[in-house]
Amino acid sequence: MSGRLVIAGLGPGAEALVTPDVSAALAEATDVVGYIPYVARLAPRPGLTLHASDNRVELDRARHALEMASAGRSVVVVSSGDPGVFAMAAAVFEAVEGGPLAWRALDIEVLPGITAMLAAAARAGAPLGHDFCAINLSDNLKPWSLIEKRLRLAAEADFAMAFYNPRSKARPEGFVKALDVLQRACGDARPVIFARAVSTPEEKIRVVPLDRCTSEMADMRTVVIVGASTTRIIPRDGAPFVYTPRSVPA
Amino acid sequence: MSGRLVIAGLGPGAEALVTPDVSAALAEATDVVGYIPYVARLAPRPGLTLHASDNRVELDRARHALEMASAGRSVVVVSSGDPGVFAMAAAVFEAVEGGPLAWRALDIEVLPGITAMLAAAARAGAPLGHDFCAINLSDNLKPWSLIEKRLRLAAEADFAMAFYNPRSKARPEGFVKALDVLQRACGDARPVIFARAVSTPEEKIRVVPLDRCTSEMADMRTVVIVGASTTRIIPRDGAPFVYTPRSVPA
Repeated sequence: MSGRLVIAGLGPGAEALVTPDVSAALAEATDVVGYIPYVARLAPRPGLTLHASDNRVELDRARHALEMASAGRSVVVVSSGDPGVFAMAAAVFEAVEGGPLAWRALDIEVLPGITAMLAAAARAGAPLGHDFCAINLSDNLKPWSLIEKRLRLAAEADFAMAFYNPRSKARPEGFVKALDVLQRACGDARPVIFARAVSTPEEKIRVVPLDRCTSEMADMRTVVIVGASTTRIIPRDGAPFVYTPRSVPA
Repeated sequence: MSGRLVIAGLGPGAEALVTPDVSAALAEATDVVGYIPYVARLAPRPGLTLHASDNRVELDRARHALEMASAGRSVVVVSSGDPGVFAMAAAVFEAVEGGPLAWRALDIEVLPGITAMLAAAARAGAPLGHDFCAINLSDNLKPWSLIEKRLRLAAEADFAMAFYNPRSKARPEGFVKALDVLQRACGDARPVIFARAVSTPEEKIRVVPLDRCTSEMADMRTVVIVGASTTRIIPRDGAPFVYTPRSVPA
């Protein structure tokens, strides 16, 4: 008997942002595997085993899921947001590539979800309405020099930018350096959006000019969006709208 | 009486990829505004007026929606994918900025959706699993020189890249030039994914090495994803898995 492995995105937090596709996969699963807070979002039910594991054990978690699917189980690996954006899908395929050849014959499906930067952008207006890039600011898995290089080139390309994992207790200095690079490279007061815990009860959205940003405005639950040079602010009572126009004059 | 304006993302095509949030907004709407094929995805019902308009009239459509919301209607502007990614949200905010001040006081909400590049990436594996950028290849609203500059800098930054609107009948030459820039800048056979009409009955996914890509592999319904230098292919029976590892060695 051959099993099934689904890698599903739970979106940023709100139930109303979970796609019906993902809900259906969860309803059929025998086993759900994931990081503790994401697995905690699911309701227990008879016939479903929840396997919650700690952060930073993505490859072990992926192998465990693949082993269970090989044994004929119907397994869902859950990520928050979209599983293909700085999340579990790449870890599962890394495990497949390094694992037994039989794993390549498994029925493996990735189900997209609402990734944090797009939920955050929606709350602010449309800051990613034109060309943009997404960068993971953690240097746990890549050298810091590569992050700095990408920041400089993204500024030169005048992309709007979305940053995942901007800052953690273990890495308090990276985001200080990233802001320094951006403030020098951009040299203006373009809007920066700090979007924390989007779509959850703890949601907090702040819009700050780049030249007044400080690193403690972000934490691990924050997605940061930096506008392009063309990004506009529409002042109004309450939070302003922030958007990047679709056109760039010649 | 003050109305409401929701800008909602219908996802790439399949009903199972429409979020409950968007479905609820559509169920409450008095008016839905959008490009003809997107409005055609909705079922008519008593009390709902459908306003379908042609392509390339985004600003007129946005103003029409804002006028109806100002008159107290409950209006939903629909986009395919995510409304904040090369879609209607930026057009609506552009209309707000240029319109009467009263429009800024409207209740305007953007509801995110599954954008085409993430649905396409999910079908192929996890090609956007590490830092990436999204570029609209249409030069209708920006100079071609800016597109070329961004392609060169994105290649230098070693981003994976997702391209929206790669090619249309009116612009057959742009994608030829884009491929030429990339083939020179990247100089290798990294995987390129041509994902057409993802999640619809016409879906077609093709993985082609960059040095063998030709422009007619894409059309206006295609999203193109170009891997980074680190992107891997896992051969297997049937379509290969394509993923970009989470780590980059120092």
